[in-house]
Amino acid sequence: MKRRTRYLVAAALAVGPLAHSTAAQDGSVESYRGTVERILGASLSEGQAFERLARLCEAAPHRLAASKGAEIAVELMKTEMEAAGFENVRLEPCEVPHWERGEVERLIVSWENKGQRLPILALGGSVPTPGAGLEAGVIEVHSFEELHQRASEAAGKVVFFNRPMDPSLPSTFTAYVGAVNQRSLGALEAAKVGGVAALVRSMTTRRDDYPHTGAQRYEEGVERVPSAAISTNGAEVLSALIAAGVEPTLSLTLDCRSYDDVPSFNVVGELAGREKPEEVVVVGGHLDSWNVGQGAHDDGGGCMQAFEVVRLLKALDLRPRRTIRAVMFMNEENGMRGAWAYHADHQAEMEHHVMALESDRGVFAPRGFTSDANPQALSVLQEIVALMADADIHVMAPGYGGVDIYPMSFSGVPLVGLLPDDEHYFDVHHSARDTMEQVNEREINLGAGALAALCYVVADLPEALPRNPIPEEGAGR
Amino acid sequence: MKRRTRYLVAAALAVGPLAHSTAAQDGSVESYRGTVERILGASLSEGQAFERLARLCEAAPHRLAASKGAEIAVELMKTEMEAAGFENVRLEPCEVPHWERGEVERLIVSWENKGQRLPILALGGSVPTPGAGLEAGVIEVHSFEELHQRASEAAGKVVFFNRPMDPSLPSTFTAYVGAVNQRSLGALEAAKVGGVAALVRSMTTRRDDYPHTGAQRYEEGVERVPSAAISTNGAEVLSALIAAGVEPTLSLTLDCRSYDDVPSFNVVGELAGREKPEEVVVVGGHLDSWNVGQGAHDDGGGCMQAFEVVRLLKALDLRPRRTIRAVMFMNEENGMRGAWAYHADHQAEMEHHVMALESDRGVFAPRGFTSDANPQALSVLQEIVALMADADIHVMAPGYGGVDIYPMSFSGVPLVGLLPDDEHYFDVHHSARDTMEQVNEREINLGAGALAALCYVVADLPEALPRNPIPEEGAGR
Repeated sequence: MKRRTRYLVAAALAVGPLAHSTAAQDGSVESYRGTVERILGASLSEGQAFERLARLCEAAPHRLAASKGAEIAVELMKTEMEAAGFENVRLEPCEVPHWERGEVERLIVSWENKGQRLPILALGGSVPTPGAGLEAGVIEVHSFEELHQRASEAAGKVVFFNRPMDPSLPSTFTAYVGAVNQRSLGALEAAKVGGVAALVRSMTTRRDDYPHTGAQRYEEGVERVPSAAISTNGAEVLSALIAAGVEPTLSLTLDCRSYDDVPSFNVVGELAGREKPEEVVVVGGHLDSWNVGQGAHDDGGGCMQAFEVVRLLKALDLRPRRTIRAVMFMNEENGMRGAWAYHADHQAEMEHHVMALESDRGVFAPRGFTSDANPQALSVLQEIVALMADADIHVMAPGYGGVDIYPMSFSGVPLVGLLPDDEHYFDVHHSARDTMEQVNEREINLGAGALAALCYVVADLPEALPRNPIPEEGAGR
Repeated sequence: MKRRTRYLVAAALAVGPLAHSTAAQDGSVESYRGTVERILGASLSEGQAFERLARLCEAAPHRLAASKGAEIAVELMKTEMEAAGFENVRLEPCEVPHWERGEVERLIVSWENKGQRLPILALGGSVPTPGAGLEAGVIEVHSFEELHQRASEAAGKVVFFNRPMDPSLPSTFTAYVGAVNQRSLGALEAAKVGGVAALVRSMTTRRDDYPHTGAQRYEEGVERVPSAAISTNGAEVLSALIAAGVEPTLSLTLDCRSYDDVPSFNVVGELAGREKPEEVVVVGGHLDSWNVGQGAHDDGGGCMQAFEVVRLLKALDLRPRRTIRAVMFMNEENGMRGAWAYHADHQAEMEHHVMALESDRGVFAPRGFTSDANPQALSVLQEIVALMADADIHVMAPGYGGVDIYPMSFSGVPLVGLLPDDEHYFDVHHSARDTMEQVNEREINLGAGALAALCYVVADLPEALPRNPIPEEGAGR
């Protein structure tokens, strides 16, 4: 019967177009070549990720969890999913932290009888400065080791972490990983040696006046001191003053603060599978963003690409065997609460999650993917990506999946992350420059096409991808 | 003796850094891995292509052959090569055509009692409109076939070629090739059916108000009619009016014109080979640009990358066995005179040209290269590019080399073209938007690093790359 259907389909194909061209597949990855090309072509000629992102950025430029912007974004995305005919559209609840940037972020550096204001942004979760601000000397360090060695000098001072991202590394993500502990742990380490605040060089290889914010964390039992990012130009100015031996004084004022947790949501919608709807491929991004710029690349764009996976496949009448579920996660930037809630609330379903895919490294031109998949699964994924070579999409390398899908790794779900060109991601990341102006229509739309093609083939292959081994520590965080 | 040197070098390497690390190579492509990584890293951390391009664009934004800007650019590049310690710096003469854009470029479309000005640019080499401009009806076509079928309607009219670049093609260059005959041959085909002018939809997938100019050509015995490019938004407006049946009238004024040829130059400088200086790897771009914007991507950037190949290898103290010659060609845009002059003047040397490499597809993030090299040579080149995978440079595919190096193909020289990301090249190409604003420092510098690494390995391998067969039509154009 199955065989007969295939013959009928082949006959139908010979005379004209067919709605479900997928039925013609012989089950090999290679047999999806035409479908992959069709998806990529349509993503460029009829893609809507760019225009949808423009609407999101206009309606809700600042979408930090617990903000009004996040609330608007959640409603907008649910409405757009419904309007686009997604199936099983729903909001899935999570509790999120609530931190407000406040009105005042000011750093003035004074020396002799001179003074200069330098551009800063409070780091996410920072406590405010006491009262009308703090005034203190400054110590510049380039690593925690250096700070510990010079601990006696640091007491009572602002600790200025000034190790740049290494510009010689071809991967800006590697350079970021090599510098970002200054931001995430700087306030904590500063407090341990009696520092009164942390000031961190912005995580970018650019020299400009835009500070780049981001998450940082405190620990129980260690004093919470305020922390801010300073622009790279500002860091150079401050460093030059220190090197000149003028012993500048810093005057720092931040009125950011934290409030009680509030309820929020992940936004979910599906293209239900035609044969195995209970088996799921997740594709997502995070809907929250920092409260500067518009979160266009980080990660409004990734969400719009995930949206586009379902929309585009529907428009092309390509319904795979398994379900494709678009998830816009909440609170990636300062808590991962949406990510953990999704994993907890879908525990029973985890064994049927075939793959989880995230786009959260900007929406520049797609170069491929990285994945933590086991060797057998990776080899299937590599075969699929080989079908995208004409679109200059080549990479399916071992590596990182995504922050929001990370909890699913504890359930053995293979993770995949979209790998876009990364040369200018950190030019905009977490800064006022992360706006629509920096997004290219063809690039975001082709990236959506690459996600759609990968999701489609994985969701449609006769056999599910081999799962990963479950890590020994079990399904916890 | 040679063997002994190698042992000494190995011993030296064990105790510290060595100026000529190349001496440690065992001759395999793989043995260059460390050197390639070092070149790529240095291109990012110490690269100067971006800042040199900024100087060029400031000093001479318009560099069409025979212009004052071209003259300034030639002198500036010669001076900079000398200042950077290039060897054998020289100007090599060529005669170039002289066409001036003029002061007036105006298109007004009128219908009923309404009128609207639409943005245009004269195409390169266009004759002016007669007297105070021409006034005529318009016929819209999408191909030469359609024009020929509707020849009787075209007489006395402006022929409006409105076939867009196909946005569904992943390669924008393929889309360009599919549309650009309208620009290069539109005036000629229009004149053949009695049209009075050609108006061509700009070669871009963007919808905006920037017209994109470019070369077009006339033929002996066919009347020369004026031709201009119209912005894509302008083309949409005009097309909508025609579709509405209002029979608009076009009023077109261009005062561009051609003058006698003038002398100009290719700019040449070298890193002389340490063992086989008579064998040459050419790396180049073209110094001329259209007389709008700044020619930043097309092709000031490519020239600065070629410059950087020599500068960077010198800075790293990497002197290969063979000579690397940077050539900034003149007159790519409207004549290729520099390209043909180089080939003619270096005839005797052609058999020692090991490879010619050009960067002329924008200076966006490098994805690899295309090449017309024979299979054996291509396989060596592929091995070299495999060393760049960590920088996300993967492609060495059969394909195009470059316009300026094309004449050398008649002498069997394998050609290679840098392949950058092409998603937004045609957003800026030949338009007022091709400025420094659109250039990313890391991207142009990494591209220079990729060129430098490829040139270095090819110039240093013990065996020269296998040459291509000489085409049957011989060494002519």
